[in-house]
Amino acid sequence: MKQTAARERAVVLLSGGLDSATALAWASKEKQWDCYTIAFDYGQRHHVEIQASKQISQAFEAKKHQVIAVDLHAIGGSSLTSEQDVPKDQAETFAIPSTYVPARNLIFLSLASAFAETVGANKLVIGANIVDYSGYPDCRPEFLNSFAKTVALGTKAGVEGVGFEVVAPLLNLDKAEIIKLGLSLGVDYAMTRSCYDPDKDGQPCGHCDSCHFRMQGFAQLGQQDPLLSLVK
Amino acid sequence: MKQTAARERAVVLLSGGLDSATALAWASKEKQWDCYTIAFDYGQRHHVEIQASKQISQAFEAKKHQVIAVDLHAIGGSSLTSEQDVPKDQAETFAIPSTYVPARNLIFLSLASAFAETVGANKLVIGANIVDYSGYPDCRPEFLNSFAKTVALGTKAGVEGVGFEVVAPLLNLDKAEIIKLGLSLGVDYAMTRSCYDPDKDGQPCGHCDSCHFRMQGFAQLGQQDPLLSLVK
Repeated sequence: MKQTAARERAVVLLSGGLDSATALAWASKEKQWDCYTIAFDYGQRHHVEIQASKQISQAFEAKKHQVIAVDLHAIGGSSLTSEQDVPKDQAETFAIPSTYVPARNLIFLSLASAFAETVGANKLVIGANIVDYSGYPDCRPEFLNSFAKTVALGTKAGVEGVGFEVVAPLLNLDKAEIIKLGLSLGVDYAMTRSCYDPDKDGQPCGHCDSCHFRMQGFAQLGQQDPLLSLVK
Repeated sequence: MKQTAARERAVVLLSGGLDSATALAWASKEKQWDCYTIAFDYGQRHHVEIQASKQISQAFEAKKHQVIAVDLHAIGGSSLTSEQDVPKDQAETFAIPSTYVPARNLIFLSLASAFAETVGANKLVIGANIVDYSGYPDCRPEFLNSFAKTVALGTKAGVEGVGFEVVAPLLNLDKAEIIKLGLSLGVDYAMTRSCYDPDKDGQPCGHCDSCHFRMQGFAQLGQQDPLLSLVK
């Protein structure tokens, strides 16, 4: 009985962005898992996401919301955590962008694993998707599967027989499909924040890759992004 | 030429304890790698280790010493980062001890990978050894090898062809053998700190597992631990 109960618990990586909010909605509403949400305060420019993640966690009645501070700023190597400029209005490319943060999902999933072990969850839910994994290697399914194996080998719960699983429900969805799924599950996208370079009040810039993808997704559905009116 | 140079760079996880100091000495003196050291400020009780790690890094002329703050205290689940008592003078056991920090090496290796990617290193050196891996799953070779594969799949450097390697030079050595190796490489063990529960001045308790293992190691070599005189 205990194992069955444990199987229904999930830790959801909740950045406060559109993707992770949709992943939480899916885990919570569609799968009916007990969700524990985790957000990271990692010296990012878009700190407003952390406030958004708390609000979204509450909206989906997560059992617990945990914010973990981790100083990726000290490592550097990315325009998201350093003094480099975030690129604006650039042509589509399949190269790894300057917004890549070295080993970010590896670090976040590792911290989520520790949290999962503490709360007795064996599923790690992440909003990684095809839009991301063209550019970010740590969103690719090969990586996510390899990570799950590594966790099983390196944690107390894992060696005691709990099989860890990284669940990426949005993996094969494009932005419009993600938004469609989220709307069907009651996500209020006005709560979410996606911009890589918001102004000091947390309003989106409307010009970075992340803003572009988001606006295009809503446009494809013939919908208006509830954040669009906030754009400068 | 550039690739050859990159191959000689290593990130060494340097806790400030006896094992990691020996691992650094090995990487630096025996392998002649350019070493970049990383220490973690993770809400541990034995904060004095962080000062020790800086001193040891300088003694072995590491290229850079990076301290990363990561709030494992928020996750809890261990007597090292929570309000539980650290066990004292307990009988030897092969169970996973209460000092186990959930997914600690997974988290530390992940952060070290990010640092490695930033400085162009492809080796991660860790002082894991048989004394540890009887109890801590994240010191076992199966875990370390699986981790290296995961990093190769999840980092920009990895997908661009850099093969990551987790190097654990002490893996099959007992404490006495580790100390013997370190002494031959010029480690000054007076600089190192091992105690799980030092007093407020950073002096070792002499009664936790870590103090016991250390004292036994020196005794087997017929040597005196330079920290022994500090024990209450």
